Amino acid sequence: MGELKHAATVPAAGKSVTLGTLRLDCGVELGPITIAYETYGRLDAERRNAILVCHALTGDQYAASRHPLTGKPGWWSLMVGPGKVIDTDRFFVICSNVLASCMGTTGPKEVDPATGRTYGLTFPVVTIGDMVRAQAMLLDHLGIADLFCVLGGSMGGMQVLQWAASYPQRVFAAVPIAAAARHSAQNIAFHEVGRQAIMADPSWRHGNYLEEGTVPRAGLAVARMAAHITYLSEAALHRKFGRSLRGGDHVTYRLGPQLPEFEVESYLHHQGSTFVDRFDANSYLYITRAMDYFDLAAEHDGKLANAFIDTPTRFCVVSFTSDWLFPTSESRTIVHALNAVAANVSFVEIETDKGHDAFLLDEPELFNTLSGFLNGAAEHRGLKRP
Amino acid sequence: MGELKHAATVPAAGKSVTLGTLRLDCGVELGPITIAYETYGRLDAERRNAILVCHALTGDQYAASRHPLTGKPGWWSLMVGPGKVIDTDRFFVICSNVLASCMGTTGPKEVDPATGRTYGLTFPVVTIGDMVRAQAMLLDHLGIADLFCVLGGSMGGMQVLQWAASYPQRVFAAVPIAAAARHSAQNIAFHEVGRQAIMADPSWRHGNYLEEGTVPRAGLAVARMAAHITYLSEAALHRKFGRSLRGGDHVTYRLGPQLPEFEVESYLHHQGSTFVDRFDANSYLYITRAMDYFDLAAEHDGKLANAFIDTPTRFCVVSFTSDWLFPTSESRTIVHALNAVAANVSFVEIETDKGHDAFLLDEPELFNTLSGFLNGAAEHRGLKRP
Repeated sequence: MGELKHAATVPAAGKSVTLGTLRLDCGVELGPITIAYETYGRLDAERRNAILVCHALTGDQYAASRHPLTGKPGWWSLMVGPGKVIDTDRFFVICSNVLASCMGTTGPKEVDPATGRTYGLTFPVVTIGDMVRAQAMLLDHLGIADLFCVLGGSMGGMQVLQWAASYPQRVFAAVPIAAAARHSAQNIAFHEVGRQAIMADPSWRHGNYLEEGTVPRAGLAVARMAAHITYLSEAALHRKFGRSLRGGDHVTYRLGPQLPEFEVESYLHHQGSTFVDRFDANSYLYITRAMDYFDLAAEHDGKLANAFIDTPTRFCVVSFTSDWLFPTSESRTIVHALNAVAANVSFVEIETDKGHDAFLLDEPELFNTLSGFLNGAAEHRGLKRP
Repeated sequence: MGELKHAATVPAAGKSVTLGTLRLDCGVELGPITIAYETYGRLDAERRNAILVCHALTGDQYAASRHPLTGKPGWWSLMVGPGKVIDTDRFFVICSNVLASCMGTTGPKEVDPATGRTYGLTFPVVTIGDMVRAQAMLLDHLGIADLFCVLGGSMGGMQVLQWAASYPQRVFAAVPIAAAARHSAQNIAFHEVGRQAIMADPSWRHGNYLEEGTVPRAGLAVARMAAHITYLSEAALHRKFGRSLRGGDHVTYRLGPQLPEFEVESYLHHQGSTFVDRFDANSYLYITRAMDYFDLAAEHDGKLANAFIDTPTRFCVVSFTSDWLFPTSESRTIVHALNAVAANVSFVEIETDKGHDAFLLDEPELFNTLSGFLNGAAEHRGLKRP
């Protein structure tokens, strides 16, 4: 693993493009916006084999390539690559860093061209809809009229749903995984804990930390630790750590910031501190807020089915039995709405104890499900076999 | 509601007694220890009608009397009082502030007689077993050889189990509610997030904030907010708040420390800030750690049933369907252990959407269950009717 640098100080490696301005849901004209992205595989001559992979809250464009800050393999390297489920010998895969994130796409850590200063909290509040419009601008730039498939987990799944609702003619197939059509009260509450932890850190400087040369490490680490618990299941935490002690058989009866007693505490500390090295605190505030705002039914007169009337898209909705952050009931709500408009939809609830994060992990039933769906859809679209 | 003062600056009202020294599980001789407590009702001539109510993590001795800092009714005023389920016309109810807490019992906010300075982090780490031994010293002082019943929810239920295991001859009946015989990995993880939030607050001053005249308000509030989510169910949060906005129909697209957008955020902020007015941050660290350490089986060669061999106590174990912090499976584990030693045990899982906090709320099935159990047990003990 290479030398670690703070996300704020390193320009993203890889591709990026500066496009026009984007009118945001909040009414602000933002731009010109820059989108940082990666591609894998080759676009076919008919430009019909493109898959857009949408990343989750703290993900990035490095779905299948080495992360420039951590040196680790891409977050979906298990899924995306030559001969893998999302087969880059067959498909042209695009993954772009979402608006308001921190790996090269326009966001609060970038410089506002109007002022010459880092945006910080002057960055406008964005929505999932804004993220998707920015992706559509990228596709226009790449000359891709319509996608073979748009696909993602968690917040990535929210983008998938927004894509299908906003651009039905540009989406042949859609796979929302471990997602929801709106963010629940409990999830908003957990996000707010994370935001309060960040904003309570004096080094946050009311969002102005980059200008002032500080980093709200402690607050961002606490936010990540709290969130990380929600990504796993109780069963997975029990299986991985149980009540194992760091010191072997006996407790130490000590208490202090750096005195974890249980293995699960050390694990959380590690999750917190490594996250701070790769992610920007203000981006965390903006992107969690975008997820909180997400409510696809509200955009369609309160009726989710209205978002999908006459949809030509074929859907594969996936949930995990032990996911308590985006439980199966949320996916069922999506499926019911799709059924109500007679959409082409298959639904798979995968039995696993891995919790919400199962979509990032080695989960053979997920691989089999996606592989079957993608191959079937590719046949329907008449894509060549590799 | 009276004027609010910080917990650290106000001596507890009500009764307190200074007893001898207590040898803690960690090996330290602590003392002389002071126990602050309240009593309700009258001890009968035979001294056989005493009920010990054990409070939860952030509870206190004011189970059925006005809280001296908040001015609010006692935390179990619905349950304890004349003619109520725990009928103070019939029973003599004792509730003492646990060791390491902050309402008058010896804890980190008190002055160490050996140094003349506030304990802070020099306070020794305590266990649920230590809390129970301190309570036993109080009963000795009050001249109560054995309890009619010991009863409590959450951490109170841990104390109930410890009482039954440590002093079987002193416990006629025992009611652990929404409890567990050991703290789970997920619960330890949530506690650690809270502790890290407190210790990350620069005003915490490595535990020395009282000496230095600061209060880690922000960190303690974040800890409380995170914990509070775990006390409710997803369904209860949805029912109470859903996605209701503070501003009515429309989002404001604003972001900042004091700019809650959703009602559930305002509610959490309120939970955080009012908690800081009544609770001590170091006590929070110590008491959460005591819960994390709790593992009754580990004290008995890894077999929970061994904790209850030949128990003369009659048990009523209670859980709530929507409690995901101390789920029914934890109560079943207790019941199985009691069954394995042929103990007298009844088990009730109460259907409710109120989550873990159901034991503090208006939950008629809980009242009926406890009322029936207490009256039956009182008959067996030959207590007079009121």
